[in-house]
Parts: sequence; C-alpha cells; structure tokens
Amino acid sequence: MNDRFLRACRREPVDRTPLWIMRQAGRYLPEYRALKERHDFLTLCRTPELAVEATLQPLRRFPLDAAIVFSDIMIPLEAMGVELEFTPGPHIARPVRTRADVDALTPRPAEEATAFVGEALRMLRRELDGRTPVIGFCGAPFTLAAYLVEGRGREGFGGVKNLMMREPATFVALLDKLADQMADYLAFQVRSGAQALQLFDSWAGLLAPEDYRTYVLPSLQRLVRALPHEGGVPLIYFAVDGNHLLEDSLAIGADVLGLCWRTPVSQARRRTGGRVALQGNLDPYALFAPPDVVRARAQAVLDDAGDAPGHVMNLGHGILPETPIASVEALVETVAGAARRTS
Amino acid sequence: MNDRFLRACRREPVDRTPLWIMRQAGRYLPEYRALKERHDFLTLCRTPELAVEATLQPLRRFPLDAAIVFSDIMIPLEAMGVELEFTPGPHIARPVRTRADVDALTPRPAEEATAFVGEALRMLRRELDGRTPVIGFCGAPFTLAAYLVEGRGREGFGGVKNLMMREPATFVALLDKLADQMADYLAFQVRSGAQALQLFDSWAGLLAPEDYRTYVLPSLQRLVRALPHEGGVPLIYFAVDGNHLLEDSLAIGADVLGLCWRTPVSQARRRTGGRVALQGNLDPYALFAPPDVVRARAQAVLDDAGDAPGHVMNLGHGILPETPIASVEALVETVAGAARRTS
Repeated sequence: MNDRFLRACRREPVDRTPLWIMRQAGRYLPEYRALKERHDFLTLCRTPELAVEATLQPLRRFPLDAAIVFSDIMIPLEAMGVELEFTPGPHIARPVRTRADVDALTPRPAEEATAFVGEALRMLRRELDGRTPVIGFCGAPFTLAAYLVEGRGREGFGGVKNLMMREPATFVALLDKLADQMADYLAFQVRSGAQALQLFDSWAGLLAPEDYRTYVLPSLQRLVRALPHEGGVPLIYFAVDGNHLLEDSLAIGADVLGLCWRTPVSQARRRTGGRVALQGNLDPYALFAPPDVVRARAQAVLDDAGDAPGHVMNLGHGILPETPIASVEALVETVAGAARRTS
Repeated sequence: MNDRFLRACRREPVDRTPLWIMRQAGRYLPEYRALKERHDFLTLCRTPELAVEATLQPLRRFPLDAAIVFSDIMIPLEAMGVELEFTPGPHIARPVRTRADVDALTPRPAEEATAFVGEALRMLRRELDGRTPVIGFCGAPFTLAAYLVEGRGREGFGGVKNLMMREPATFVALLDKLADQMADYLAFQVRSGAQALQLFDSWAGLLAPEDYRTYVLPSLQRLVRALPHEGGVPLIYFAVDGNHLLEDSLAIGADVLGLCWRTPVSQARRRTGGRVALQGNLDPYALFAPPDVVRARAQAVLDDAGDAPGHVMNLGHGILPETPIASVEALVETVAGAARRTS
C-alpha cells in the first residue's frame, strides 16, 4: 500500500513527499466536465457511484498519493434542515440570522441524513483496494456559519462577522451546533472507511486573532474532542489566509496544518516548533506559468519544506478550472522525481 | 495647530493618540448620502468644491486628527488614458491584459490631468487653516494593476496573478508605469498642500511573500525613490491582509505601516523592531457591536499599542456604509479620553 501520505501526516519518514491536489476532482479535467454535463452538482454528490467516479478520475491520470471523497462542505448541512441549491455556488433558501433560526436547526445523525457519503467511502476503499488512502472532510464551524448567515458566498462575509459582534451568544450557539453535527459527520466518515480527515476553514482568515481565540477556537476544540481517537486517523486543519492564526490553530489539536501560499512551509515549521505536519502550498495561480516555471516553483516549495518529516505537498488553495493539464503533469512529475535525502 | 497625527507618523511624543478613519467621508453619514443624491461619484471627485465638502463633513461631526482629500484610487488612471465608470464599483471599459495594452497607456503630468485634486487640496488647506493636517493618497501599483487587468473588482483578482505568472515582464512593465505615474501624482499632491501621503495596497495581501519581493516591492521602491524627500511629508503604506508581508514591506521606506485588524499593533511593533510608526487597526465590523463593546475594543487597541511613540489610531479597513454613527462617537470619545502616560 502507498502509505506515504498517512506517514507524512504522522511525521514519519517517507521515500518521497506525498502529493494530493485540493479539489483534485473538478472543472480542470475534461472527463469531469463531461460528467457534469450529464448530472448536476448535487446529484454527483448524492449518488455514490457518481461521487466515486468523480473521485477516481484524477487518480487515473496522475499517481496521486491520496484520494478525497467527492462532495461539498455544504452537503451535511441538509441533515440539519438547511435547504441547499448550487447556482453554481451554494445558495441557502432561508439564511440563519437570529437565535430562533439557530434553534430551528435540527441535527440528525449523519448516518441517516448523508448515508450516500458513507456508501461512496466504502466503495472507494473497495475500489482502491489499499493502493491509495481515502480522505474524508467537512467544513469548519465558522466557515459553514459564514455561508449560513450570508445565504451564499460573498466577499468579506460581512454577515457572520456582524452577527459575531452584535450577538456573540447567538454566534457561539450556531458554531457549537455546527461543531456537534460535523463531529458526528466526520465520525461517520471514519466508520465508513475514511483514513484521514480534513477540516476546511476557508473563511477563518477574515478574523482577528483575538476573535478567533475567543469565539472560533472553542468550537473547533469541541469538534475535535468529539471525534473518535482510536485508529489514528490523522486530522488536517486548513484555514485559508490563516498566516496570522497559525500559532493559535495549534490549539485545535490537529495532526496537520494546511497552509495557503502566503506562509512559507519553512516559516510555518519554525512557528509551530515542529509540533504538527504541514500541508501545502503552491499558489494555484502558479499553474498558469509555463511548465518549466511550474517545475521550478514546485521544487522551491519542496526545497523550502526541507527534509524533516511531516510535509504533504499540495496547492495552497483549490485548483482553478482553467488550469492547463500540462501544469498538473509538471507538478506531479516534480514531486515524483524528488526523492527525499533522508529516505 | 493640531499636529499630533504628523508627530505620531514621525514617532514623536504626543498628548494623546491621533485618530482618523479610513474612508472617513462616506455612506455612513446622512449628509454624504444627501450629497451623493445630488451628484454622481465621479462628479464629487472631479469638482473641488464638492470634494472639499465631502472631505470636511466628518470633521464637522467629530474632532478627527487628520483630513483625507476625497477622491478614489482609480481617479489618476484617467491621466493615462483609462476610461473609468463607477457602477458603483470601478469599471474599466478596456482592461489592460497584453504588452500592447500596457504600452498604450500614455502617462500625462498629474498637474494637467488631475488639476482638480490639486485645487481641492489647496482649498482644504485654506479652509482648515492649520487646524488639521491634510492627507493625500494614491493606489499602490499592484492594486491599481489588479483593477486594470480585471476591469473591475472581483474576489481574488485572478487576472493580475495570472498575468504575473504567465508574463512577468508585461506585469512588471505595467507596475513600473503605474509607479511612475503615481509618484508624479503624489508629488503634485504635496506641491498642492498634502502634508502626509498614504499608499493604498488593498490587494497586495493576495501575494506570496516571494512574489511580493520579486515583482511588487521593486515597483514600490521605484515609486518612493521618485518622491520629493524635502519637507518631511510622512508616507503611510497600507497593505490590507498584509500580515505575511509585514517584514518585507519595511523595505519600501515608508514612515508608517498601516495594519488591518489581523495583525495586533504590539506584534507589528515587535516584528518591525520599532523602525516605523504603525496605523490601525480596529476591525470595521467591531463598530456593529453595542457602544460599550466598541469602547472596550477601541481601548484594547490603544492598550495593545502601548505608550511607545508612533501609533496612529484608525480602523483596520474602510468604514462600512451601515455603521451606526453612535459607534463612531464611541470610538472618537474613547481615543479622545485616552491621554498617553508618556505625554
């Protein structure tokens, strides 16, 4: 079995740095676009066979070191009674803005509400047969709250920050409810076969460190405390634009911290004192450079990360739809060709 | 004369921390909305009497320690042949995307092209008669390039990063041309009476430190080298979301670094070794909290900044249109009541 991804998450020595690509399934692949022409996004997420197909497409092209189950961070919110559309971004029929709205969210066991995710994970484990580990994931409470309050994606996500400032008790009640639902959802993914977990905190970077510590970190710790700890399933926490939150996010208790392109891996290693593994962080826009520049930039990330154990190569954010496939090839070849000197 | 703002920029002792509010003129004031009903945004910018009125409105309400001439960072681009509309955000008829587009930009002396800004500054100096210093400003080259390439505001400003990666020579040529035009524009503002200058780099935070150093910092240094250095007009550089660029931005040679709410003032002081004054950085969303919380949060920024000379109080980004005026009052009162122990 290719376990270099899981070994790197645990800061164990590896033969070479493992690589996966955030949202590796997606619009940069023609076979995904073809799938998307036949089925809408929610159908892809909710139909195990289709989710498995979308998950496996990039692995047929590239020798990636992990698969991540095809889904969306908004999917498990339906279990709480949230009505969801994608147009193409998430759109929520009734945004959550008052204490009554928060109280009206009715958690349901993930096992019932999102059984299709469990089925997709089981099928993936069977299909991959130990060749590549499978990652499960969810959105972090603050990021989910950002969408729930706003009702859709919006630059700056003013609504959720406004709520935090005006009504901190309502805000915290929302985060705690989301933390509990996501803990149940992640535990269900582990029972269904997920061998690693990633928490996506795409909007935490909007917060001042003090507010993150006061209001957001406790909900993340609540979530992590509720996870099953037997089995050694590594947990990755990824806050986009989280350079200013790096030290604070150590307190979550994740095994791996994801870095966007703003924080050099070597700097993050220094600032975290080597207490966690690190994931990232080539700028997704770097993939628009010519292939030789892509190779040089990918190599620069590997060189900066150095030979100490505990680095998972990835982009610093999701791959962009217009990305040339030749760039992905250049990235994959560079990482595959870079044997670690300590191996 | 109230010179505590200029003294703080020069890291000299002051009786209390000076305060001004980024974009202090604006939609949070009913008298501004009334002005805006009678005149469109470009007319306000281009008509000295109206720009002066918009500049002075907040100073009639609040005892602020600096005035900033009412304008927009896009205004001086018209001098280069850029056709501009506000709908209400900036909209550029012909985006700048190729080397030919960059070459077609034709710099013209700011004195001719934006004479109205000079006239507004002269009127403001007369009107304020030494009571409050007047700040001139412009956009930093990368931020202006972000709008020029995209043609409008867009989350992530992918266009300009794409250009930087694909065609770094074209990107650098664009930044250099913008640096030269902005240097001329700022020098003109100083000749017209500006007593301090602020460079707004609203989108620099999108860059990795290495790309900022390689491609963006040289254009900022080029701009600063071309400024008149006699007269001691302090220069403020403000990169939003620039926590990861703080040490690098010291090399610009600005007297003051602006901080968004992500970087505590005390941390910035440590990281910059006290070599510059610091400006900021209450989160604009904090003004949606009840007045007693606004007071506590404003006091927390002052306490964190401490008693060492060289702090200009401000928000960490522009004030939001829906901001309650009572919150601005609470902020102003807190800063006015906080005499410095070293005064």
